[in-house]
Amino acid sequence: MNKITILINCKDLPGIIASVTNFIVAQNGNIVYIDQHVDREQDIFFMRLESEFTNSNFSTETFKETFKDTLCGKFKMKWRIYSSETKPKMALFVSKYDHCLYDILSRYNSGELNLEIPFIISNHEKLKYIAKGFNIPFYYIPVNKNNKAEAEDKQLELLEAHNIDFIVLARYMQIVSNKLISKYPNKIINIHHSFLPAFVGAKPYHSAYKRGVKIIGATSHYATEELDAGPIIEQDVTRISHANSIEDLIAKGRDLEKIVLANAIKLHSNRKVMVFNNKTVIFS
Amino acid sequence: MNKITILINCKDLPGIIASVTNFIVAQNGNIVYIDQHVDREQDIFFMRLESEFTNSNFSTETFKETFKDTLCGKFKMKWRIYSSETKPKMALFVSKYDHCLYDILSRYNSGELNLEIPFIISNHEKLKYIAKGFNIPFYYIPVNKNNKAEAEDKQLELLEAHNIDFIVLARYMQIVSNKLISKYPNKIINIHHSFLPAFVGAKPYHSAYKRGVKIIGATSHYATEELDAGPIIEQDVTRISHANSIEDLIAKGRDLEKIVLANAIKLHSNRKVMVFNNKTVIFS
Amino acid sequence: MNKITILINCKDLPGIIASVTNFIVAQNGNIVYIDQHVDREQDIFFMRLESEFTNSNFSTETFKETFKDTLCGKFKMKWRIYSSETKPKMALFVSKYDHCLYDILSRYNSGELNLEIPFIISNHEKLKYIAKGFNIPFYYIPVNKNNKAEAEDKQLELLEAHNIDFIVLARYMQIVSNKLISKYPNKIINIHHSFLPAFVGAKPYHSAYKRGVKIIGATSHYATEELDAGPIIEQDVTRISHANSIEDLIAKGRDLEKIVLANAIKLHSNRKVMVFNNKTVIFS
Amino acid sequence: MNKITILINCKDLPGIIASVTNFIVAQNGNIVYIDQHVDREQDIFFMRLESEFTNSNFSTETFKETFKDTLCGKFKMKWRIYSSETKPKMALFVSKYDHCLYDILSRYNSGELNLEIPFIISNHEKLKYIAKGFNIPFYYIPVNKNNKAEAEDKQLELLEAHNIDFIVLARYMQIVSNKLISKYPNKIINIHHSFLPAFVGAKPYHSAYKRGVKIIGATSHYATEELDAGPIIEQDVTRISHANSIEDLIAKGRDLEKIVLANAIKLHSNRKVMVFNNKTVIFS
Repeated sequence: MNKITILINCKDLPGIIASVTNFIVAQNGNIVYIDQHVDREQDIFFMRLESEFTNSNFSTETFKETFKDTLCGKFKMKWRIYSSETKPKMALFVSKYDHCLYDILSRYNSGELNLEIPFIISNHEKLKYIAKGFNIPFYYIPVNKNNKAEAEDKQLELLEAHNIDFIVLARYMQIVSNKLISKYPNKIINIHHSFLPAFVGAKPYHSAYKRGVKIIGATSHYATEELDAGPIIEQDVTRISHANSIEDLIAKGRDLEKIVLANAIKLHSNRKVMVFNNKTVIFS
Repeated sequence: MNKITILINCKDLPGIIASVTNFIVAQNGNIVYIDQHVDREQDIFFMRLESEFTNSNFSTETFKETFKDTLCGKFKMKWRIYSSETKPKMALFVSKYDHCLYDILSRYNSGELNLEIPFIISNHEKLKYIAKGFNIPFYYIPVNKNNKAEAEDKQLELLEAHNIDFIVLARYMQIVSNKLISKYPNKIINIHHSFLPAFVGAKPYHSAYKRGVKIIGATSHYATEELDAGPIIEQDVTRISHANSIEDLIAKGRDLEKIVLANAIKLHSNRKVMVFNNKTVIFS
Repeated sequence: MNKITILINCKDLPGIIASVTNFIVAQNGNIVYIDQHVDREQDIFFMRLESEFTNSNFSTETFKETFKDTLCGKFKMKWRIYSSETKPKMALFVSKYDHCLYDILSRYNSGELNLEIPFIISNHEKLKYIAKGFNIPFYYIPVNKNNKAEAEDKQLELLEAHNIDFIVLARYMQIVSNKLISKYPNKIINIHHSFLPAFVGAKPYHSAYKRGVKIIGATSHYATEELDAGPIIEQDVTRISHANSIEDLIAKGRDLEKIVLANAIKLHSNRKVMVFNNKTVIFS
Repeated sequence: MNKITILINCKDLPGIIASVTNFIVAQNGNIVYIDQHVDREQDIFFMRLESEFTNSNFSTETFKETFKDTLCGKFKMKWRIYSSETKPKMALFVSKYDHCLYDILSRYNSGELNLEIPFIISNHEKLKYIAKGFNIPFYYIPVNKNNKAEAEDKQLELLEAHNIDFIVLARYMQIVSNKLISKYPNKIINIHHSFLPAFVGAKPYHSAYKRGVKIIGATSHYATEELDAGPIIEQDVTRISHANSIEDLIAKGRDLEKIVLANAIKLHSNRKVMVFNNKTVIFS
């Protein structure tokens, strides 16, 4: 049996849902999941659909072609079609903090994540031993102000050689360049250690402490050219009090960062996220 | 323009979604919302669909008939169809606590609720002045161990005279009879002041205090024959500590009860709840 | 029996706690609550202490004098001492939104709040009927760009005539002047409908919608000269999704605003808040 | 400098706080933290106090003796006194689930936990490789219905040989015996995968799914003779919906279990928990 996931968006028009569901039936598919959203401000239609095909000669490629010819032109759809056979390939970028790395790798090891991690890239050697413990290749690519372009070329080479589908910046403390972002649009997931848009930039826990907020948060978003301003995938928060020091905020924040980033990775790798106009539609 | 909401459930079979969406198109409707759920344990399909009809001669009754003839038999569907023209009518049962009553009536007054409240019934006169302040008829029907059946007949008479669609027990401190429950199946919304199934029955805040839990909750559910065991519509919780007295728990609980009951009322009156096998499906 | 609440802050020095507890014992008091906090960044000591005095000739005024003479000079303390006999007097400022007003007045009516509300001031007549329903004097003081100073003089006159202790801006849609703020420093409680410091200023729900956040919040803080930048007393948040319209955000936000403002009022009126350097210490 | 933490409880009597604070001053100590709680139902006083001593000839043992002689008899106190010099020693019991083990060991490795882990005990060999990766001794002690007493003797031998202070059952799927519990009263921390007291016993996620709750939880408590009925240290919850399968609940629950257990471990190892009458007092 083949399982296909379809994600589409287009201008909202009457008849889209019926046209798509009819198309699936005509292809002998059984719809097992359908969800849709209409952005009334922008008049945009979004849909996510999962369908199963039991015919033995089913081909994902043929299905894509037929879908494109039959429907996409008619409704001027933007579309993505995935087969459940192929797991997405995720590259992990880390630096010196180990909590998100440990969290992701232990989930990966437990079979919780529907993806492959061909390698880890870091600008420091500090966490190499963790990668080794989990048997994942670790590439040490140091970055300084003189070698940025060169370092990035090495990164790109690795990403392309392994057909990487998306990148996760697991507290990678470097700003990635527009070149990398433009090659992986809405495919670079960052974790920012604040409840965005509050406390953009460096040292958000210090800023939160100084402002005296009663709740802190973490935000996972796609990296865009503007720092910490990309489409938000997931956020979570936790209570703090006057009694908490900056160190306490950092410690509590680590738990938020781990959970929020892990949830964003799951949503992305399960193809449940659509991006439009710097906002996300998150299907359940 | 007519707006129709359709709720169906039936055994899960291939082709249901396509059949329903085709039917809507054939009736010249535009689907503006579709959501579905399959209960894999029980193999049951659930769907909620909103559709708009702009043809001037559209009739909700004719639509219902056609829907029934065309689809319901084929898939052995259980179905409900609502027109957005008619607001549901809700009867409020209260006793001595005023917090849920104030909360519901102030929301009602602000236009936040999509429903009508023809009257309030109480077994005490204590809250009559609040009903008066909001200009809602208030019926005082005292209940004691000798007049239960008689009191209930008066209640039923009022409910039927006003074509009440559903009942809300806003901290109504009496157990409603099976007679009433069987006349309004999955149409009597209760608020229980605990995180069910913990602390069933009377004085849940006292039990929570005694057990030393760190979180308390409130649960809104449909009344069924078995006490506090009906399908859960909505729950919420809040943190407590050893420093909180039983009075503190009761005070914090009041805020939970208000919010949870208000949310359950909104979900029910917006026809977003389906019940199957003592569990709810809550559409977004 | 007299119950006294003491709030102090001063530079952190050895021996403060022992000196204060000894002083209470010497005055024949029994300490029933003590909590303290040291701000290590600024080296400031904070304490809240409740003590009971059963001697029949106890006088709060004499106690204050003795406390001041014995301890305050020695440790250069800032101090406030309250008797549980006197309830704080709170003035309510409202405009056109009724949800916080209904919420506060129904809590007040239920005996949940340890305070008195001598009157309500509004720049619109719209909510007068609610004040009337709760039997609270309502003063309509219209404000426009030409009469601001004059309107404020009327407000100040009322505040002084009733010996008001603190002011609550329950979605009062006007910016209060520095004159008023300087007369009631850390005594004007505002509710801002966002998770500050995100979305300062007007229309925060619109900004939250536009940014695509997954969580919205509300913040209660003391009004200061700089808009929405005063010491934060309480915050709370709730989840939203792409499916929520701006109207949904506003409706969900109303529930947050009510709870957050009510909690801030309770903390302030129970003398559990201290302010230092634009941050609050909130005692339990 | 020596830092001492004192935990006491006794019948509530006037003058306790002053007596203790005076005692500290007389010993040339500086109180840096004091918190207290009075259980009004049972009339019991609880206090936690941290004090610093700079005199070079300070001895924790002498301090304990003097404290005992001077105060404990007078107020019939139950007391515990700890020096910050000694880290508590924690034994980890695991079975087949790895998520709590990974979580605890990665926190331990990052220096987040104020404790030592001399060894891990398991009734399965499955997780041995993880212990090895973190360089912690791993003892495989199989348990079956015929060797229970013998297995337990081996466990006790290890616990005593290493002077273990407390035990953490990190999803250890065996019921520990009363013998072990009585040797480590309020020193065996368990994580139960439900919001207790709901869903006691085996397979709580299955029960939660069947009941149709909208929120699931996890509870960390001290093991007592009665199963899942010991004093609760920490709880947390997360929202679920009808769309979540049992597998989803288990996956979401893993994240709850990790956080709740880690928080309970931190509270216990930082000596912030007191137990009285099967309830905990948790100091901040």
